[in-house]
Amino acid sequence: MISFRNDYSEVAHPRILEKLLECAHTQNNGYGLDVHSAVAADSIRRLLGRDADVHFIPGGTQTNLLAISACLRPFECVLTCDTGHINVHETGAIEGTGHKVVTAPHVDGKITPDGVRAMFDAHESEHMVKPRMVYLSDSTELGTVYTKAELTAIRKVCDELGLLLFLDGARLGSALCSAQNDLTLADLAELCDLFYIGGTKNGALFGEALVIVSDALKPDFRYMIKNRGAMPAKGFVTGIQFEVLFEGDSPLYFELADRANRQANKIAAALTARGYGFYAAPSGTNQLFPTVTAEKLAQLQRDFAFNIEKSLDDGRFAIRFVTSWATTDEMVDALIAAL
Amino acid sequence: MISFRNDYSEVAHPRILEKLLECAHTQNNGYGLDVHSAVAADSIRRLLGRDADVHFIPGGTQTNLLAISACLRPFECVLTCDTGHINVHETGAIEGTGHKVVTAPHVDGKITPDGVRAMFDAHESEHMVKPRMVYLSDSTELGTVYTKAELTAIRKVCDELGLLLFLDGARLGSALCSAQNDLTLADLAELCDLFYIGGTKNGALFGEALVIVSDALKPDFRYMIKNRGAMPAKGFVTGIQFEVLFEGDSPLYFELADRANRQANKIAAALTARGYGFYAAPSGTNQLFPTVTAEKLAQLQRDFAFNIEKSLDDGRFAIRFVTSWATTDEMVDALIAAL
Amino acid sequence: MISFRNDYSEVAHPRILEKLLECAHTQNNGYGLDVHSAVAADSIRRLLGRDADVHFIPGGTQTNLLAISACLRPFECVLTCDTGHINVHETGAIEGTGHKVVTAPHVDGKITPDGVRAMFDAHESEHMVKPRMVYLSDSTELGTVYTKAELTAIRKVCDELGLLLFLDGARLGSALCSAQNDLTLADLAELCDLFYIGGTKNGALFGEALVIVSDALKPDFRYMIKNRGAMPAKGFVTGIQFEVLFEGDSPLYFELADRANRQANKIAAALTARGYGFYAAPSGTNQLFPTVTAEKLAQLQRDFAFNIEKSLDDGRFAIRFVTSWATTDEMVDALIAAL
Amino acid sequence: MISFRNDYSEVAHPRILEKLLECAHTQNNGYGLDVHSAVAADSIRRLLGRDADVHFIPGGTQTNLLAISACLRPFECVLTCDTGHINVHETGAIEGTGHKVVTAPHVDGKITPDGVRAMFDAHESEHMVKPRMVYLSDSTELGTVYTKAELTAIRKVCDELGLLLFLDGARLGSALCSAQNDLTLADLAELCDLFYIGGTKNGALFGEALVIVSDALKPDFRYMIKNRGAMPAKGFVTGIQFEVLFEGDSPLYFELADRANRQANKIAAALTARGYGFYAAPSGTNQLFPTVTAEKLAQLQRDFAFNIEKSLDDGRFAIRFVTSWATTDEMVDALIAAL
Repeated sequence: MISFRNDYSEVAHPRILEKLLECAHTQNNGYGLDVHSAVAADSIRRLLGRDADVHFIPGGTQTNLLAISACLRPFECVLTCDTGHINVHETGAIEGTGHKVVTAPHVDGKITPDGVRAMFDAHESEHMVKPRMVYLSDSTELGTVYTKAELTAIRKVCDELGLLLFLDGARLGSALCSAQNDLTLADLAELCDLFYIGGTKNGALFGEALVIVSDALKPDFRYMIKNRGAMPAKGFVTGIQFEVLFEGDSPLYFELADRANRQANKIAAALTARGYGFYAAPSGTNQLFPTVTAEKLAQLQRDFAFNIEKSLDDGRFAIRFVTSWATTDEMVDALIAAL
Repeated sequence: MISFRNDYSEVAHPRILEKLLECAHTQNNGYGLDVHSAVAADSIRRLLGRDADVHFIPGGTQTNLLAISACLRPFECVLTCDTGHINVHETGAIEGTGHKVVTAPHVDGKITPDGVRAMFDAHESEHMVKPRMVYLSDSTELGTVYTKAELTAIRKVCDELGLLLFLDGARLGSALCSAQNDLTLADLAELCDLFYIGGTKNGALFGEALVIVSDALKPDFRYMIKNRGAMPAKGFVTGIQFEVLFEGDSPLYFELADRANRQANKIAAALTARGYGFYAAPSGTNQLFPTVTAEKLAQLQRDFAFNIEKSLDDGRFAIRFVTSWATTDEMVDALIAAL
Repeated sequence: MISFRNDYSEVAHPRILEKLLECAHTQNNGYGLDVHSAVAADSIRRLLGRDADVHFIPGGTQTNLLAISACLRPFECVLTCDTGHINVHETGAIEGTGHKVVTAPHVDGKITPDGVRAMFDAHESEHMVKPRMVYLSDSTELGTVYTKAELTAIRKVCDELGLLLFLDGARLGSALCSAQNDLTLADLAELCDLFYIGGTKNGALFGEALVIVSDALKPDFRYMIKNRGAMPAKGFVTGIQFEVLFEGDSPLYFELADRANRQANKIAAALTARGYGFYAAPSGTNQLFPTVTAEKLAQLQRDFAFNIEKSLDDGRFAIRFVTSWATTDEMVDALIAAL
Repeated sequence: MISFRNDYSEVAHPRILEKLLECAHTQNNGYGLDVHSAVAADSIRRLLGRDADVHFIPGGTQTNLLAISACLRPFECVLTCDTGHINVHETGAIEGTGHKVVTAPHVDGKITPDGVRAMFDAHESEHMVKPRMVYLSDSTELGTVYTKAELTAIRKVCDELGLLLFLDGARLGSALCSAQNDLTLADLAELCDLFYIGGTKNGALFGEALVIVSDALKPDFRYMIKNRGAMPAKGFVTGIQFEVLFEGDSPLYFELADRANRQANKIAAALTARGYGFYAAPSGTNQLFPTVTAEKLAQLQRDFAFNIEKSLDDGRFAIRFVTSWATTDEMVDALIAAL
């Protein structure tokens, strides 16, 4: 059984594990105040082209609940689209910190400036939650990416309405390496108040690098991290991983994301060539959403693991293939052969 | 500079890292529903000698806030001693989930049946929080360990008063390997409603194995884990580590803890031989709390890193030495030479 | 300016105030443990025809957040329709206690069994919140009422799916006195796990009587009340009000609600006779939602206060008239004359 | 049975109830945006001699949890003395909003500048909660009052340490009317960031006037009120009460508090004359804490209701007598006769 179920099936890239092994007995300061974390943060700041606070957080849901609850007062809400990860797939973790998640319909998995404005306008009194933050992810839950023009337009409406902009980059590597992408990390630092660079889904054992750009959000943030149980004693383990992922002139981080995208692109080309439809158009990232017949579904399930997203009205199924840094040519060829 | 600051300074035991490297490219189910986690849980259950739910959680504070908030209704509180980790060193993480932490004075770092009863009796009306759980850690913040008689006496008062018993085992390995210990994992499963076996401070990269014994606490616990952001996508990374730590007839987990204890014992013997006093009597675990003069403190600080716990009234200082699985004979000898 | 803005514009029914004045200097036990509260609870239980816990809570939002957070574990959510008061008009009070509010489209302001089932089915994994309670209000935000058949069907799906049923009766008096209603308080006690009988919008100074029917929800509920700041020192002030509202064979509570409904019915008849359309069909309760032209709107606003609910696509406006126990014939006649 | 149990046993001062009755049928804007609330707030601001936001909140615990959670970020704590109402008698309501309550030993029921500094100094790292607010009440739980010098000294340490100062004035009327008091409402507005003027324990049906002095705490506060369920639809009912309590040149509020104090003073004089000891020295407020023998206790309990605070080591009991605006000369005489 070959899995295209997700990009967090494999343990981690060997270069990360080798580095950890190499450091196994070294002594480090605890709680993220170590040299490795500092070096990794510097590498990231270099790519941002500006100063920013960088905190390494173990997990994605944890980063979301931490970042959102750090920025909002009790009566404030976060705006997202209906497919947003925080709305659907975090078991109420955001509400668990006391905040409502307000949604607008997505367009290709994305939130739009009009959607933001509509949600803002619908909350006009003190009897309703007060919009304070826009949450979006890049790439999105449908594998799509934001263009620089799109993100700039959202930033503009945020500025106009007094909203913070938070980007969930659980799959940011794949987004930035898509052929459809025209954003850089420096652009994100310019456009977002805070965002994170996902490691878990791009070759790390675990870990997300939370980048806080806005000065107003920086003070006492480490207290917040600890308060939410998100400050591991061995913070240097995350630091070492991001050190490896972002060192040098052509960081491993982008190499791994690019590799995952290229494997997905090959599958996408094969799907298109064979006349498959798509639930969401391929966008150059590592997620594909082809539609298949029940018969084909059953056949594919014999040898491959993947998610069924939805059963469609015409009897077909939207399924999801996800590639990773570890997806081999053999795995791709086997899938293409089966299509 | 040699650090005796804590037992989470080093990355991880090589055997764990080698196993991760060996599995680097294998594909696993996400969110802890993988084979490694299942095997690790089985190994632990074997040692418990009974059935129990075992969940692998990334960090200690996270495990505490998760376990406590899973068990308590909004108006219920947790009882601990004043030195309890949840009371002092978790930046209000427990209160962050809505629950008061009520304290009694510690005796040698421990909570006592009388202390529990006194706290219970002091909360006699609905205008006060309702005691529902006793929290304690073994080994304690002062390196001491509970005897079987002590823990049994606490269980007895818990039963009488309708309280749950939760044991924080961040340093459980060291406790169980102390010469002063007469408890087994099976005893803990008998006496506690839930407890955890700490990996972070005993050779793992990170990770705690939360053992839920009481049937009433089991249902839907994975929802709780996700809700608190404590369910990593790559749950198998924790699973693999505990698989390594607990496989075989003489599990690495105890070997590592025993090694740490033995190094501490050597230092304790040297301290005693040289006439040092102790802030807390050595208890066979990996934490030592000698008292030193200001002069000796300054001298030690030149070559060694360690915590200063307290400045004492007589001008001396209580300091803390912590050993780990990675503490070498050379490090110990250097410290003893300096004493 | 005559206000049809809501049913909580006037202070309180004189009979309540006279009773308070009569008792002004009497001494009572605090925190709801007084004779008046006991008598009032008994009167209510008599109407329920069964045993139940009755707690008097100062306000509606407070009762909602209290009842919901008392019943749900942290990862559980409450289901309602999109127009539900807890979803829209409580400034995130429910999320403030940690729980997601999940919604389905309303049908005439009501949640349906199919809506409940659809929400339940959409939350099938531990990565999503777990449905645990259905919240609905009678009368609804659109002034409509549930029939016994409708509520029974919802109860049935709740039983099937393991959901609690909580009815917000902020306007229950008006609902029960509607000609379209076939439910009794005894029916509600049969069908709901808990519900409340609203006083604020039916002649009291403030106050809601929360009725807990299910035994499992009763223990320690007064702790919850205090924990949420909902246990006033002078609980007897609420008790006295409900004592007055529910004493005797034809309780003032229903007399007041009936009076409000009758005034609304007269306005509804006039609206219909004059050919006005309705945004929501009149349902015999004290809320009316006629549609008016911009011109008529402007004219009415000169002499009357009321809410504009929505501007419609055809240029007209849906407005809301609310009557109360204090709405006089003169006020109604003036409005009818202006229509 | 005559009750000296507390100052919230009686319904309300008749003048308040008569005013409510007089207004019974008038129509008002909802949610505190009415003329009565505006007039009452103006009256209070006149006494403050400066601008401030005044919000009328139904209850005391509610005001505390609201004010504290509005001012603190998740990792911040509130400092109080061990006898503080929020620490002991609110069923964890403050922790319920996510914040730790940190305590120092009281001195005569009061928190001291040294106590504040000690708590601050004990929380020096990000692994501990961050002190952000000092909470105190005047009069205190032991009936004592803060002098202007004492409160000024606390303000000074707050300024030095970056702490907010919040005064719980549930019994502020009694405090300000004590012979030992030298503070005015204007002083409080000068020294506190926010404080409240209690109505429940001084003749109102219910209600506390929360005064927000610091500009930084004012924005969006009404959202907070609604979010905590503390914004009653009929806010004008609280407004009318404070209108009555604070209108004119010699406000009823002080007249009532003075009356309660005078009755307590008479009892205190009798106790002293008869040689009774005191658990806390009489301070001119409406709370007295004499000590009595078991025999005397039993005798008093036959005719009077009061709280037993503590059983003392010498076999005697510390009991509490509380007077109110409604305590008559006959009641006082009867008690004195029995002493």
